[in-house]
Amino acid sequence: MKILFDLLTIQSVSGDEGGVSKFLLEYIQKRQKHWKVRPIIYSGEEFHDCILLKFGKPSTALFAHMDTIGFMTRYENQLIPVGGPEYIDGAFLVGKDSLGDIRCRLKVEDDQLFHDFPRAIDRGTYLSFEQNVRLDEESIQAAYLDNRLGVFTALKVCETLEDGWVIFSTYEEHGGGSMPFLLRFIQENYPIQQALIADITWVTEGVRPHEGVVISLRDKYIPRKKFLNRILDLAEKSEIPFQLEVEAYGGSDGREVQFSSYAIDWCFVGAAEENVHSPDEKVSLLDLNSMIEMHQYLMKNL
Amino acid sequence: MKILFDLLTIQSVSGDEGGVSKFLLEYIQKRQKHWKVRPIIYSGEEFHDCILLKFGKPSTALFAHMDTIGFMTRYENQLIPVGGPEYIDGAFLVGKDSLGDIRCRLKVEDDQLFHDFPRAIDRGTYLSFEQNVRLDEESIQAAYLDNRLGVFTALKVCETLEDGWVIFSTYEEHGGGSMPFLLRFIQENYPIQQALIADITWVTEGVRPHEGVVISLRDKYIPRKKFLNRILDLAEKSEIPFQLEVEAYGGSDGREVQFSSYAIDWCFVGAAEENVHSPDEKVSLLDLNSMIEMHQYLMKNL
Amino acid sequence: MKILFDLLTIQSVSGDEGGVSKFLLEYIQKRQKHWKVRPIIYSGEEFHDCILLKFGKPSTALFAHMDTIGFMTRYENQLIPVGGPEYIDGAFLVGKDSLGDIRCRLKVEDDQLFHDFPRAIDRGTYLSFEQNVRLDEESIQAAYLDNRLGVFTALKVCETLEDGWVIFSTYEEHGGGSMPFLLRFIQENYPIQQALIADITWVTEGVRPHEGVVISLRDKYIPRKKFLNRILDLAEKSEIPFQLEVEAYGGSDGREVQFSSYAIDWCFVGAAEENVHSPDEKVSLLDLNSMIEMHQYLMKNL
Repeated sequence: MKILFDLLTIQSVSGDEGGVSKFLLEYIQKRQKHWKVRPIIYSGEEFHDCILLKFGKPSTALFAHMDTIGFMTRYENQLIPVGGPEYIDGAFLVGKDSLGDIRCRLKVEDDQLFHDFPRAIDRGTYLSFEQNVRLDEESIQAAYLDNRLGVFTALKVCETLEDGWVIFSTYEEHGGGSMPFLLRFIQENYPIQQALIADITWVTEGVRPHEGVVISLRDKYIPRKKFLNRILDLAEKSEIPFQLEVEAYGGSDGREVQFSSYAIDWCFVGAAEENVHSPDEKVSLLDLNSMIEMHQYLMKNL
Repeated sequence: MKILFDLLTIQSVSGDEGGVSKFLLEYIQKRQKHWKVRPIIYSGEEFHDCILLKFGKPSTALFAHMDTIGFMTRYENQLIPVGGPEYIDGAFLVGKDSLGDIRCRLKVEDDQLFHDFPRAIDRGTYLSFEQNVRLDEESIQAAYLDNRLGVFTALKVCETLEDGWVIFSTYEEHGGGSMPFLLRFIQENYPIQQALIADITWVTEGVRPHEGVVISLRDKYIPRKKFLNRILDLAEKSEIPFQLEVEAYGGSDGREVQFSSYAIDWCFVGAAEENVHSPDEKVSLLDLNSMIEMHQYLMKNL
Repeated sequence: MKILFDLLTIQSVSGDEGGVSKFLLEYIQKRQKHWKVRPIIYSGEEFHDCILLKFGKPSTALFAHMDTIGFMTRYENQLIPVGGPEYIDGAFLVGKDSLGDIRCRLKVEDDQLFHDFPRAIDRGTYLSFEQNVRLDEESIQAAYLDNRLGVFTALKVCETLEDGWVIFSTYEEHGGGSMPFLLRFIQENYPIQQALIADITWVTEGVRPHEGVVISLRDKYIPRKKFLNRILDLAEKSEIPFQLEVEAYGGSDGREVQFSSYAIDWCFVGAAEENVHSPDEKVSLLDLNSMIEMHQYLMKNL
């Protein structure tokens, strides 16, 4: 899990994914010789900060977003959110501007956000929750688990994948915007019929820690029933622990697959976390393990 | 109207349009020999559950969505909406899960939805209003009129159409998602410059039953003035009864034409109903008739 | 500034941009012989009411929207908004229907809108604020400055531009819809990697009149950090006065670049106004001047 711990130290609030993208690309270039199949790697300015890996002859793509929620400095000592971070009064935030490193506290007053850094911070500076990784036998707890665990899952899938696309996307937490050009590139190069989203969802009254990876039957948007039935049949056969989610709200990169100019089925498959979008996101190691196994199984058998 | 009555018995909540699509395809394959022109039929997994019919040399497409509003089971005995159904306490809902047929009542408590079925229902099961078709000399009343009447209109247009696309779309009630790939397919095969939406709207203070089909000058989105002027000139010439709608809210497949990657004009043309998105949707037969005639006229003369 | 004054007299509420488009096209055709480079002009029904100018070998496009906010007549004497106009009780509105010219007052009652014209107005008639241009040594004040000043800026850029697209778009104030097909056309003909939005923003606690053109680091959507850094480096070098905006709300044609099927960076560059979306929009002439200079500089040096 060394790579996961490394990933958890990198800040990459939506719009500023350059650092994590560079780190991932170096890791992929170093590790791919140990993978069952060496992928074709698409990256660079033509793809903004996204990375696409094509293994063999794909019919399915796995998507994992590299960005996280965070904050941006406005005027005076105001902050505005990037994506939907929890407003936790007193939480430590970190970042960097033209004058150097920043560590300050988040102040929440009547739903308005401020920082307490002693000097002015450059306008438009990204801040995010200070990292504090905690691991025990049952769970991992940290900031950015959403979606470092999806990125980690995608890398584990790469190790044994023979046919499929693996995609690292940007901007998911803040409305999206990279998926449309990624999907166009995929469909114009080696088109797919189906997409899996490797991302993190929420513990709720119906989804419990330690009970297996979540297969989402819907969030705000609804995958096609026929495709869900195929996924569920495979999931049963796999004997990997899973649970079913049904939500009226929330979204993922699947939303942009649904509204793309291509007929591509999609399904969200990921572990559930507690303390969503906070410095204390917590995920069961059993659920993470079944997330990895389920994506490996589905990418092979869909 | 046999085909309309048959259509009204089929459940097809957004995301689960497989059944109505199969039924329609069989009907089209059986009936097309009686049509003035036999269309090229595009369907199958490549188009998900949508159906495209190309007649002659099209410059215009008519779109009718096949899905309806409904409900989905969540955890315990909770329900969440699909699209925007009316919350009618005590209304009968029907559906089917792995254990068999379901008939239960909708319970509304503080805007939360529940069912009263005696056993647990599989997570993610679709339910929709129980059908009860009522026909008299003036009106038809039933569930799913929105948009079975649009589908019926499209089929009537098929009988005499020489040049044009007729498209049966999915997911309209729940945010859309099939229109982008349908439009791309159309534009890459035999492109159009204009689109008509055959769908059902609302009776309001300005739109009355029995006063003709509604031509919508806007809903939440606004068609281009130049195109509306052409439609209105033709509508006047047609001598078919019509009325004009101006709304600040609501949408249709026209929304996705507006935001597509193609310069395609669009206009909504359809009958108005009372008791929208309920088991008691009610439409004037005169208005339905003028809806059919207007679409036939516009598809020929635009 | 004769052309700006002419532009300010033309009504072009979203959906009804035909008039301003025709006027602009005639101006462009007349003036282009005085420009450093003569562009290829794309316009006509194939592009709805939009105009695209291709100069030399573009890598960047400048977008200016031609539409304005306004109102539309509904039933009785009701009005509904087009885009987000200020609700100013007693403001004069003008327009035209089948019976002739209209001049009336806007009446605001409990957030409902009405007009006081003595006769009924055709359903779906566009009205907009009566124009009243006021110019002094420091500022210009008028209706429609948003976005006539962007259009004016674009025309000034045309005078000296060697390589680049200049695009006049529609529907920006009412959710958009022309950008997707404009971007597809551009990318399929002479593709770009970056986009500048020439539009008007708001005076706020952080953005003041007479302090230079605004470079927006974000509104509701967030441009890519790497691209903003390049813009800011150039802006510093240019020695043109500018200020930085950070907003959580609002949008522009940049939104549709962000969500397009192409990897195109974007940034909003424009003067800030007081009395937004009213008949009394007010912009500093210094800021307008730096808006023109900054777009000229960036289109040359990006």
